[in-house]
Amino acid sequence: MSNERSEDQAVLTAPPMKWDAWGAPEKRKVLSDGIKGLLRQALGVTIRETPDRVAANVVLAPSAVSEGQLAALAGIVGEKFCSTEHDDRLLRAGGKSTLDMLRRRSTETQNAPDVVVTPGTEAEVTEILGYCADNSIAVVPFGGGTSVVGGLDPVREKFDAVLSLDLRRFDSLIDLDIDSGIATLGAGLSGPAAEELLGARGFSLGHFPQSFMFATIGGFAATRSSGQASAGYGRFEDMVQGLRVVTPAGILDTGRAPASAAGPDLGELFVGSEGTLGVITQVRVQVHPVPESVVREGWRFPDFETGAAALRALRQEGAVPTVLRLSDEAETGVNLATHDKIGDETVTGGCLAITTFEGTAEHTAERVAEARTVLQANGATSLGEEPGNGWEHGRYDAPYLRDALLDAGALAETLETATRWGNLATLRAAVTTALTESLSGQGTPPLVLCHISHTYATGASLYFTIVCAQNDDPIAQWSKAKTAAGDAIIAAGGTITHHHAVGVDHRPWMRDEIGDLGVTVLRAVKNAVDPAGILNPGKLIP
Amino acid sequence: MSNERSEDQAVLTAPPMKWDAWGAPEKRKVLSDGIKGLLRQALGVTIRETPDRVAANVVLAPSAVSEGQLAALAGIVGEKFCSTEHDDRLLRAGGKSTLDMLRRRSTETQNAPDVVVTPGTEAEVTEILGYCADNSIAVVPFGGGTSVVGGLDPVREKFDAVLSLDLRRFDSLIDLDIDSGIATLGAGLSGPAAEELLGARGFSLGHFPQSFMFATIGGFAATRSSGQASAGYGRFEDMVQGLRVVTPAGILDTGRAPASAAGPDLGELFVGSEGTLGVITQVRVQVHPVPESVVREGWRFPDFETGAAALRALRQEGAVPTVLRLSDEAETGVNLATHDKIGDETVTGGCLAITTFEGTAEHTAERVAEARTVLQANGATSLGEEPGNGWEHGRYDAPYLRDALLDAGALAETLETATRWGNLATLRAAVTTALTESLSGQGTPPLVLCHISHTYATGASLYFTIVCAQNDDPIAQWSKAKTAAGDAIIAAGGTITHHHAVGVDHRPWMRDEIGDLGVTVLRAVKNAVDPAGILNPGKLIP
Repeated sequence: MSNERSEDQAVLTAPPMKWDAWGAPEKRKVLSDGIKGLLRQALGVTIRETPDRVAANVVLAPSAVSEGQLAALAGIVGEKFCSTEHDDRLLRAGGKSTLDMLRRRSTETQNAPDVVVTPGTEAEVTEILGYCADNSIAVVPFGGGTSVVGGLDPVREKFDAVLSLDLRRFDSLIDLDIDSGIATLGAGLSGPAAEELLGARGFSLGHFPQSFMFATIGGFAATRSSGQASAGYGRFEDMVQGLRVVTPAGILDTGRAPASAAGPDLGELFVGSEGTLGVITQVRVQVHPVPESVVREGWRFPDFETGAAALRALRQEGAVPTVLRLSDEAETGVNLATHDKIGDETVTGGCLAITTFEGTAEHTAERVAEARTVLQANGATSLGEEPGNGWEHGRYDAPYLRDALLDAGALAETLETATRWGNLATLRAAVTTALTESLSGQGTPPLVLCHISHTYATGASLYFTIVCAQNDDPIAQWSKAKTAAGDAIIAAGGTITHHHAVGVDHRPWMRDEIGDLGVTVLRAVKNAVDPAGILNPGKLIP
Repeated sequence: MSNERSEDQAVLTAPPMKWDAWGAPEKRKVLSDGIKGLLRQALGVTIRETPDRVAANVVLAPSAVSEGQLAALAGIVGEKFCSTEHDDRLLRAGGKSTLDMLRRRSTETQNAPDVVVTPGTEAEVTEILGYCADNSIAVVPFGGGTSVVGGLDPVREKFDAVLSLDLRRFDSLIDLDIDSGIATLGAGLSGPAAEELLGARGFSLGHFPQSFMFATIGGFAATRSSGQASAGYGRFEDMVQGLRVVTPAGILDTGRAPASAAGPDLGELFVGSEGTLGVITQVRVQVHPVPESVVREGWRFPDFETGAAALRALRQEGAVPTVLRLSDEAETGVNLATHDKIGDETVTGGCLAITTFEGTAEHTAERVAEARTVLQANGATSLGEEPGNGWEHGRYDAPYLRDALLDAGALAETLETATRWGNLATLRAAVTTALTESLSGQGTPPLVLCHISHTYATGASLYFTIVCAQNDDPIAQWSKAKTAAGDAIIAAGGTITHHHAVGVDHRPWMRDEIGDLGVTVLRAVKNAVDPAGILNPGKLIP
């Protein structure tokens, strides 16, 4: 097990995000006049200028770890991999949801991990977990810091302190089995770092969620991530061939074969465990040769219902693109899919869909022809390559727009769910109504946009974007709307989350999602692998 | 929840098998001269005639349930659904492995369930589990009775008696969501009964394991079954959208959506649980329209290695048939794939592969053309339709041949495993060597045949058929060979079972398969849902 890299490489491969916003400072978004006009006219936002925030001005509660504890932790990982510095703690004080960003703006004392530790080996992780169990310290595993569900909140519960366990040093391509198309990746590799290591050998993972630029391989596994090319390459759990997980009770190594009938699939118990059951250190994933051909195409449907039926037909008849998405009338109207042009009027009316096909040139050509036949028979009009290229260009940038909207005085957030095709229209209506009524009732009527970004033979996801004016207490404002949406999702038969995970934010609905016995089972597993309960308390398991 | 059917329908839809052999009496196989010649010449079998066995002559241990217990159980399900009759007990004394068949031939007192109960509702199942937990009675869930791993053995462990819980009355198509392609099926429906109910509505499940004619929907889920069309329609767990499971601690209903990030996938914990964690009563499965076009084709490869590489290319390039199989030189040589012709010399030399494509006419035509290009570029020569049709014709009949071989004095059994493509040749050689050495060492050199019947982008299954002369103690003879094969599988990095499940027979290797912590996790889940431990003791969990 050689899984160690130098500190310098680690820093390169896991780029840190800003503490008070998504992503890299240089990609900060300036709102166009089109967007500003939309905010003023449609939502009644009074546009404001927000000055830059200074990290040093944020007041954090003092670190609760003692000098002795710090020395003990430094003794395990080495002094330079153990920090109680203000900036290190602040950067790991939470994820990047709208609520996180609003909380970071607070002038009151903020909660943050008491210490940040960056181990380099599984043995060190094991030692840290043992030390924390013996010393009443909770452990929050940290990858790219992109959680939008409170999965990284420094929840203390019964513990005296919280340790942020940063996995960025697990950043190697440990093995590549070319014949089998299986790569063994360190959990701390970011999306781009993994693609770069694989790309140098001619392979690709094909997992491109919106968080791709920052999120890590371990985080993808821990949260059941699903990427924008999931129609072609599957959800992250479909790619996972095996996991290595360090728990307080020992190490689990799942997946002896591509498929097995040797009892329950224990890998599926740790995929989606969100750091509550163990620390994922390695993930074996299915990879594929870098596609030689990529063909993108935009389509217009007269309405969302027609478009959804066409996506269903394409899925069920088996001519499946790698990317398959459909924006509703409202999202198409504001041109959000290709959001360099929000407010422009290049696409008017109907619903925009995007398809991408990848593979060998022959494979792609055949699939494109087959898909065209199905889509056109189901009401689609081709818009050529441009909309697909526009979407591709801005595919990771929506969070930058969100942050600019927050600074300008708008409230902007997203949420997502999924259901079977037969229930999709009902669920979409229920969630839209719940959000609209909740926010209108608070005096801030919202724009609620929706798209399908993940499809299955049996159903699809629904991804909502909500924008309205902020009121005086935007944290309470959004929390009320989110509660209304969550209740509506459960009542209408959807899942509380299709690809954002549970964390703190969706935990209130977990009992509705999996039932009393499901909770009992999760608690039993938790007690078996983490008897002291130190791993990510307050998350996932109600 | 309306899940009740009449007794008569139940009997019709779950055909019982013979007590001492596979399947229906009228399909009994008579060995051809070709096969007899092969047995004599190649394996030294002295062909013998075995008289018919009479069920009434089998001595069963007396039923250990008291009159009072019988009355209590009859009070739950009704008198006619509760039996201690000799024939009912004998039919559920085990599964249909070679060891089972050899044990049924014994003239000594045999172990059998003490009582057979056939509940009609989930409430009755709950009551039975409660009664058994309070009265020291173990419960063995029973579907089609096709286990080949000892999954139905009436193991008592610490309990005073064993109850066989026959699920054949859970035999409805409970719901069909046509838009979503999701059917909700009673767990007791046999393969043909489910296909008939779905077929009447224009749909098919597409799950066709060799046990198809007798095994049940609940059994497919409980054992992680994989059918002959798994390349196209997936393993059974891929089809499962949700489960209802009755446990002593309550009912679990998994799967709110086609996909979810709401924590671990608990369905994957109960798929493959082999009756040790609960009684599966309903399964929601993905279904598809009955294909309008089916195209079968046979192929010859010069050798197994070339054929395996071609299957891998086909899988990884994405032109995947519904059925994709490859026999090795030995299996091709004895013509086992189309076993009406065993011993004939219609196919000589090389390795036979079979592909089947299904779907709309256009879809099928395009995929066939694409696959031909890949296969021919990888060393395949087309043999036309005939080999595929021959295989299709005999696809469920191998167990009848096995029984005829046993009666004739040969030992015949199968076992299977899987691994990544990069390890396939190593694993095949290791298992072949272990079986050959063990049986040759016992004075009965075997014929060891092998085929690939399930493929994945990252690997494939290996299915071995072993035939040799019986010695004086064929149970001990096969047990030694099986132990050698299991040890070899673990040492060579394969899974102990790809689609036959664990039961009693593979349990000795479960700790090697999933590790100490994996066993701890399974035990924790078991204790949470079945605190008295009544559910299928001695199976799966070491």
